[in-house]
Amino acid sequence: MTRKLYSLCGADRTRPFSPHVWKTAMSLAHKQLDFEIAPVGFTEIPALEDGATRLVPLLRDGETLVKDSFEIALYLEETYPDRPPLFAGEGGRGTARFVEAWSQATLHPAIIRIIIRDIHDRLDPVDQAYFRQSREKRFGASLEAVAEGGAAALESLTEKLEPLRHMLKSQEFLGGASPLFADYIVFGAFQWARIVSPQRLLQPGDPVCDWFERCLDLHNGLGRTVTAA
Amino acid sequence: MTRKLYSLCGADRTRPFSPHVWKTAMSLAHKQLDFEIAPVGFTEIPALEDGATRLVPLLRDGETLVKDSFEIALYLEETYPDRPPLFAGEGGRGTARFVEAWSQATLHPAIIRIIIRDIHDRLDPVDQAYFRQSREKRFGASLEAVAEGGAAALESLTEKLEPLRHMLKSQEFLGGASPLFADYIVFGAFQWARIVSPQRLLQPGDPVCDWFERCLDLHNGLGRTVTAA
Repeated sequence: MTRKLYSLCGADRTRPFSPHVWKTAMSLAHKQLDFEIAPVGFTEIPALEDGATRLVPLLRDGETLVKDSFEIALYLEETYPDRPPLFAGEGGRGTARFVEAWSQATLHPAIIRIIIRDIHDRLDPVDQAYFRQSREKRFGASLEAVAEGGAAALESLTEKLEPLRHMLKSQEFLGGASPLFADYIVFGAFQWARIVSPQRLLQPGDPVCDWFERCLDLHNGLGRTVTAA
Repeated sequence: MTRKLYSLCGADRTRPFSPHVWKTAMSLAHKQLDFEIAPVGFTEIPALEDGATRLVPLLRDGETLVKDSFEIALYLEETYPDRPPLFAGEGGRGTARFVEAWSQATLHPAIIRIIIRDIHDRLDPVDQAYFRQSREKRFGASLEAVAEGGAAALESLTEKLEPLRHMLKSQEFLGGASPLFADYIVFGAFQWARIVSPQRLLQPGDPVCDWFERCLDLHNGLGRTVTAA
């Protein structure tokens, strides 16, 4: 197999958890392209492919290397135009950037606070040290202090999901009647939490929970191949 | 001219202010379709076109009547496929529903609190009575009590715009390099405030303010044909 997706893992190499890698895994499956997962820890990333990237996902597709989940989706759409579309047109590409921005600006800052201890605890010791140092620098606070905001972040999360809930009155997916890359952007955030944390971010009966379950069912249940924490 | 857009106005019939009507005005201009504005007050709407609607926009296009800004955009896209696209594909249509949901769930509840007194004060007396009664019922509070939340809503608005700001690092419009209906959805919310209220919702130097100014320039400055309050 020539297609390889470098995927962030903790001590358990069978449980890739990066939200951005999950966006790409779903994109590849959507395009009906085979790929193998190459598990890596945080501190192994800079050495991959002659220093090609500091972040995953990194995709090797034959001779081509592509990084960044959005760039990879654009690459796949252009390279495999006869496969099911990830953006379904120029408009879908443009507004997917808004969905990405909403996910990064609204969901990720809340979710990281909820699960930061769970992530740390699942890493190899060498990656734990890196994770602690880099995240404490980013937040300007100890991991423990960031985690203290977790309960409030969990409580406020449901209100942040109101736009999604509102949209789900009109259609089953962000893409419309069927999923597109825009769905995988938001899916990645919840899959990240599902895999590393036993905390429940979505409550049964919430339309967002139903949408997430529909996403877990896609592509022969690809999302379910890693069980919930 | 056969195309008529029923548009909500206050006592000054030359200043249509409904956010949803502005979405449609921009959509018609985007499709390079002529239309005339038919100004109506809140209490006149139920009598329009044999009781066709309780809400504007309502568009008469020859023999066809269409209501609801999103439905009208879909109608225009289907009816005038050779004109510039409003959604630019199926994906754009799907994710525009998310933009609409975000605007309705995040921006509108904040903006209505900021401008509710300004709207009221610009209406004809008969519409003032209707507006007070219907909004007090909707909010379960007096207009004055709702307006008391305005200062806090104005203060929190800038944070709610973070997704848009984040996206504007990648591209000039929600549609990508050029505007689509998704832009007009968000534009409508700020144009509503611009026309009825002297309060400044967007600060100079904010990329969202720059984007709004770009939208005001579109279609020969259609948005500027009504001056700021």
